[in-house]
Amino acid sequence: MPTIENKIILPKSELPTTWYNVLPDLPDPLGPYMTPAGQPVSPADLEAIFPKALIEQEVSSLKVIKIPEPVLEALSIWRPTPLVRARRLEKALGVSSRIYYKDESVSPSGSHKSNTAMAQAYFNKEAGITRLTTETGAGQWGTALAIAARQFGIQARVYMVKVSLRQKPYRKIIMNLMGAEVLPSPSTETDAGRKALSANPDALGTLGLAISEAVEEAASRPDTNYVLGSVLNHVILHQTVIGQEVKKQLASIGEKPNYLIACHGGGSNFGGLVGPFVKDILSGQKISAIAVEPESCPTLTAGEFKYDAGDTAGFTPLMPMFSLGTDFQPPAIHAGGLRYHGAAPIVSALLKSQVIQAAAVSSEDCFKYAQTMAWSEYVIPAPESAHALAKTCLLAQELEKQGTPGCLVFTLSGHGLLDMTAYELQQNNHGNGKS
Amino acid sequence: MPTIENKIILPKSELPTTWYNVLPDLPDPLGPYMTPAGQPVSPADLEAIFPKALIEQEVSSLKVIKIPEPVLEALSIWRPTPLVRARRLEKALGVSSRIYYKDESVSPSGSHKSNTAMAQAYFNKEAGITRLTTETGAGQWGTALAIAARQFGIQARVYMVKVSLRQKPYRKIIMNLMGAEVLPSPSTETDAGRKALSANPDALGTLGLAISEAVEEAASRPDTNYVLGSVLNHVILHQTVIGQEVKKQLASIGEKPNYLIACHGGGSNFGGLVGPFVKDILSGQKISAIAVEPESCPTLTAGEFKYDAGDTAGFTPLMPMFSLGTDFQPPAIHAGGLRYHGAAPIVSALLKSQVIQAAAVSSEDCFKYAQTMAWSEYVIPAPESAHALAKTCLLAQELEKQGTPGCLVFTLSGHGLLDMTAYELQQNNHGNGKS
Repeated sequence: MPTIENKIILPKSELPTTWYNVLPDLPDPLGPYMTPAGQPVSPADLEAIFPKALIEQEVSSLKVIKIPEPVLEALSIWRPTPLVRARRLEKALGVSSRIYYKDESVSPSGSHKSNTAMAQAYFNKEAGITRLTTETGAGQWGTALAIAARQFGIQARVYMVKVSLRQKPYRKIIMNLMGAEVLPSPSTETDAGRKALSANPDALGTLGLAISEAVEEAASRPDTNYVLGSVLNHVILHQTVIGQEVKKQLASIGEKPNYLIACHGGGSNFGGLVGPFVKDILSGQKISAIAVEPESCPTLTAGEFKYDAGDTAGFTPLMPMFSLGTDFQPPAIHAGGLRYHGAAPIVSALLKSQVIQAAAVSSEDCFKYAQTMAWSEYVIPAPESAHALAKTCLLAQELEKQGTPGCLVFTLSGHGLLDMTAYELQQNNHGNGKS
Repeated sequence: MPTIENKIILPKSELPTTWYNVLPDLPDPLGPYMTPAGQPVSPADLEAIFPKALIEQEVSSLKVIKIPEPVLEALSIWRPTPLVRARRLEKALGVSSRIYYKDESVSPSGSHKSNTAMAQAYFNKEAGITRLTTETGAGQWGTALAIAARQFGIQARVYMVKVSLRQKPYRKIIMNLMGAEVLPSPSTETDAGRKALSANPDALGTLGLAISEAVEEAASRPDTNYVLGSVLNHVILHQTVIGQEVKKQLASIGEKPNYLIACHGGGSNFGGLVGPFVKDILSGQKISAIAVEPESCPTLTAGEFKYDAGDTAGFTPLMPMFSLGTDFQPPAIHAGGLRYHGAAPIVSALLKSQVIQAAAVSSEDCFKYAQTMAWSEYVIPAPESAHALAKTCLLAQELEKQGTPGCLVFTLSGHGLLDMTAYELQQNNHGNGKS
């Protein structure tokens, strides 16, 4: 009779009641956001599109920030999330390392994005905002925002990168089901969209352009604010529930992590896992934190650290970050949402200070290990999460060769059930599917 | 700080170690299966397509049957499954009844079908079988079988009703990912399929015909057996882990069910929930067990109790059951997998003896309450499960009017994430979606 509990589940009473602010822990303080003219951006400049509470969080020097009761209540719908020992994956790989994954796929949207969506919808509601605009690439963020907007009784409009909308019809259906409006970007609703369409009527869109459209609309309407699913400091702040729970869960079974691994698109999932461990790393604990990106969009491993805009049209402030340039257009292969030209300023600063590391993996390895996970754990990772998984598997096998197995923790940032076309394309490319 | 645990989760050690056989509890014994010529079918007749162990289970008079260790190990990957108090759904409905759902959607395939798929794959493997054929309608059963075949190292070929294959492309992708072969039915691989195609080259298929194809192939190959995802006694037997767990879970919080509600396609989900309670009902406990079917395929509420075949071509034995006739072709609307002309002999016998009840619900109500559940619990039910949900909601509201709230338990037999096109069609039909 199998009685091994592979899932470490915390009781509701262990849900973190504060967010962990990593800003005070950074070895070098973040440079300020800048206007294109070279002036520091003031908090007031951001009030056209963000509520004050979030702007305060963006620059806060407090070590922890209390999670408001209604947000806690929303988070408690699915949190704390399980930490799972992937014993069958370990066996399939033939490794003696202990592999754990933090299962963020159990959220209402199927990904970690719900953690910040609920918080952002709440603070906007509190500020009297009745409408939110946002962009979505692969659709995880748009889904999370649609659900959070419903939770707090706000309208949501989602600009979805056109190529993703075509590849992932189920995403639009679920956002519509939750009551959100979904437009393909480039759209005819904004100047930025119309400009892109007049340059190329068949333009398939980019995340940078979809951001421009959503920001443009929010800036032009007093009832409407803009919300972003990654990159910004307050987004990473909201995601630190992940790392805080992982700490408690590992401690509850007497484990200490040697490796913390998360995929990196804009940086919120990685920052949320690693943020609460930064102090430990700086105080000498031997933890390698690895941000994993696609080879096809190598922001951290091949980008340049500089001040750059967050969107194509240049509506956002310039931020100090690793960037491939706002014109970067990733090849039309499937890397899920990991197709953004920039990186979170917090993650960029941690990488620049060598507190963390970055790695790129190939789409072949992502598909290979996603299949290994599907065949062993019967879990189908989101294409994004497959990057963290692939790096974890490659590393565990390398450690095995070196005779230095350890404790590896990665974030299953989401499930892939709404993104199965990515697997179909891979099956076709690699001939692993059957007719 | 919210500390209410809405999920009742049993530890692994509480996983049932035996299946509950409802056959000895039936007030009237089941009539034997018959050949078309009117002779009782002998167990030996079934050996062309089933292993002896499953044939024995089909006619067993034992009260309980031990679950073999490898099956227990496979079940323990996701079982025991949560019983969830749907407090936000109760609030959305404005009812004071306690509504619980047994969450079978957490299985590797996303539905209860994995419970019997694992068992059937195991017993076939033990019998030296290397290949399995089956049919699938909406795709839940095919997905479960593909995963179970992989777990036990067997090849799987799935005949999928052509209209469903077109509507649900993600189902094929996931079955392929797991290593199974998927063919549209009618296919050119079998006499039954070729006959259907020559009569109508554009035939969209039925579950009855897909069964004929899978049975025909299995009967013609010694290395190949056939597996069925519902209807038969041994399938219901394997599903009784559901009802056994529900009993323990309700007892653990001092609850007694007034209503047990499950959707009914072939009867396995309903039989699995209700089977372990039949003795309680017969001994006078006030439990209403309600099998819920679509108005568009009203097998139990409008069918005739008679001996009828399980498939279109008449390859299966005649079984004593409620049936709409093997030629019944449900309208091409979405009721998920609930489109079968027949009903499990066990469920039919229970209904005939008035131990249980049956009810039909409209597709409009299914969509309406599925949306209510999505908006309150943030859970998207499978179209099948939406039938149980709709009946539960209608009943809870009726009880509220009567001033007789109670404890209602329904099975969330699966999630709808791989079936989102059903929601798209409903959005288009009912105008509830936004562009």
